[in-house]
Amino acid sequence: MSTETAQPDGSATSSSSNVARQFATIFSPPHPLVLESGDQIGPVTVAYQTYGTLSPEKDNVVYICHALTGDAHVAGRHSPEERKPGWWDGFVGPGKAIDTDRYFVICSNILGGCQGTTGPSSECPETGKPYGPDFPFITIRDMVNVHNGLLDHLGIEKVLAIVGGSLGGMQVLEWAINHADRVGAAVILASGAKLNAQGIAFNAVGRRAIYSDPLFHDGWYYEQSEKPRFGLALARMIAHITYLSEQSIELKFGRRLQDGDEFRFDLRSETEFQIESYLHYQGKRFVERFDANSYLVLTRAMDYFDLAEKYGSIYQAFEKTKCRFLVVSYTTDWLFPTSQSKELVRALVQARRHVTFRELESPYGHDAFLIDRELPKLGSLVSPFLARTHQDIAEGTF
Amino acid sequence: MSTETAQPDGSATSSSSNVARQFATIFSPPHPLVLESGDQIGPVTVAYQTYGTLSPEKDNVVYICHALTGDAHVAGRHSPEERKPGWWDGFVGPGKAIDTDRYFVICSNILGGCQGTTGPSSECPETGKPYGPDFPFITIRDMVNVHNGLLDHLGIEKVLAIVGGSLGGMQVLEWAINHADRVGAAVILASGAKLNAQGIAFNAVGRRAIYSDPLFHDGWYYEQSEKPRFGLALARMIAHITYLSEQSIELKFGRRLQDGDEFRFDLRSETEFQIESYLHYQGKRFVERFDANSYLVLTRAMDYFDLAEKYGSIYQAFEKTKCRFLVVSYTTDWLFPTSQSKELVRALVQARRHVTFRELESPYGHDAFLIDRELPKLGSLVSPFLARTHQDIAEGTF
Repeated sequence: MSTETAQPDGSATSSSSNVARQFATIFSPPHPLVLESGDQIGPVTVAYQTYGTLSPEKDNVVYICHALTGDAHVAGRHSPEERKPGWWDGFVGPGKAIDTDRYFVICSNILGGCQGTTGPSSECPETGKPYGPDFPFITIRDMVNVHNGLLDHLGIEKVLAIVGGSLGGMQVLEWAINHADRVGAAVILASGAKLNAQGIAFNAVGRRAIYSDPLFHDGWYYEQSEKPRFGLALARMIAHITYLSEQSIELKFGRRLQDGDEFRFDLRSETEFQIESYLHYQGKRFVERFDANSYLVLTRAMDYFDLAEKYGSIYQAFEKTKCRFLVVSYTTDWLFPTSQSKELVRALVQARRHVTFRELESPYGHDAFLIDRELPKLGSLVSPFLARTHQDIAEGTF
Repeated sequence: MSTETAQPDGSATSSSSNVARQFATIFSPPHPLVLESGDQIGPVTVAYQTYGTLSPEKDNVVYICHALTGDAHVAGRHSPEERKPGWWDGFVGPGKAIDTDRYFVICSNILGGCQGTTGPSSECPETGKPYGPDFPFITIRDMVNVHNGLLDHLGIEKVLAIVGGSLGGMQVLEWAINHADRVGAAVILASGAKLNAQGIAFNAVGRRAIYSDPLFHDGWYYEQSEKPRFGLALARMIAHITYLSEQSIELKFGRRLQDGDEFRFDLRSETEFQIESYLHYQGKRFVERFDANSYLVLTRAMDYFDLAEKYGSIYQAFEKTKCRFLVVSYTTDWLFPTSQSKELVRALVQARRHVTFRELESPYGHDAFLIDRELPKLGSLVSPFLARTHQDIAEGTF
């Protein structure tokens, strides 16, 4: 598939140090995607990227599901000039934990997002304008059905493994449950069978920040000169605190001041402490790349995710699965604490599934699976897990 | 002092079931309060309430310091019709843990607040208009200096105990350190020697919500028809999550829906889950009683609090104290986790102070010290601690 990759100069590439955006259009009428809500949407454009080479047996596909505000650009650079590589560049690439010399990696932007896949900021075919708040209500299962449609489009029958953290882990779970015949292994990082009530609470406050921004205009801000950047930045700042841990904030910033050692006694300053300055920066950077309506749609999808509610129990959900599982949590993750991973593992064991579980020590909270210095530990679990699954499938002993 | 209490009908009362607002004006020119910033403010009006009867020896005073958004109305009702009693009515009153049959209880609204004591919404004597954003920058020490001024005004030399939780606990610490000769005992609940960086982060986001509300008008909203209620409500919603614990949110709300059992698949609904509805309600109620500028001033005072920074070390701070201490933390408090209380206790032990410490089991997070069903456990610590201190002082064995 990577040979189809179109570069601006017309050349093709499969090197992860020089990747390209790819697009597929699927679910075109008269076969739109039927959503969990009962609504329909189509056509759906999917932005995706691939890394490595698909084996002749097509048995080396690793599908990566990104988290809430991620995108398809998981590794490499689109051009040598690009400032930062993809969001998991330390983990995915030649010789890395997810080794693109061995595996053919696919990552697609999720439905409802704003990085190339159809979302609220995309043009609605009926109106010729952005969907805006008319974008349908979507769920994690809907997102995964789009990933599944992309696999069909690419002519790939089975994936060796689905890998994802946080909201990505929720997608992995829906993959394993609803597309059981396609999945060899599921790697679920810093996630759980549901978003807990505290997580819903933080999402609710983030959405309130967007809704109460007068520039939001009930979601019809695309034709306005200004976007609801204050509300969206605020939502990001709130969420960002939940991605860190108390320990990581102490380590990185503590109570240190941004400038000098003396208090300013100035109420107008919003960035006196380093942690404040950092959060403001995160908010500002986020609004440059993200769409407020997407944020609303995706956080609601996350809120709705609840295996027990949907399948009767987590055990019943897992009875539908056929793959093996690797579940990883982090000691200081308080958005998806280890108890949530253990809940998954208990139900998997009850359903007699092959599951490996590790709680990794880390000060970095929920974001640990994205932090470079945590990747060796994670890689030492994921890499042999993929290799063993690959081998077992090849040898027919799976 | 309670005999000075003016009731609307002209009668006086000291009953905690029928309390009255009282006011004192102190720090009048030419003797204004010199603030830690170097600024001055005066006169300062202090709103306070008293409960019980001052003993002839004036040895039974318990001074209660309220938390961030509390007020002087700690117990009882201003009138039989008042919907809710004071914020610590389950803890303070005749026969209760802080027994107003034995102790003379004083609670005053803090400097910078908006419940009667001089704050940003008070009239500035120079302009005849509210201080607004011109209100000076204040610290916890400044608040305590106002409490101290009130004691002078009331002709009370010593207090048996100072009691407070959270920001109130910070005030207790400054009392014990800076007014050591006046304090017999210090009761510090769910607090610490500093606000940690995560706490600063949450405060920063709350302030950002207020600053970015277009109705804030740089703090000059008092003469506007609308107040920055969206920003202030949002700040409260964020903070409120930190006052609860994951466990208490699960217990009280879990993932239950507000209406019915079925998802609505409606992105416009902001109150689909009970926890959302609850937070929105908390936000709405809060803006009815609180001033946005006060919120800014008080959270900044909290951010600045850091005994080690101010006194060289926590140990050095405690070397200045002369009282005995009771320190209480709660297992699920993540805003002021037990580690913060232990940090206080270590330094107190090092400084050879008499200290009792207990970590109480509770699912209710930071707010546990305010929750009725947690009060018996807390009372079983506080009540004998006060009685013993009272007795030791009376017998001269303190």
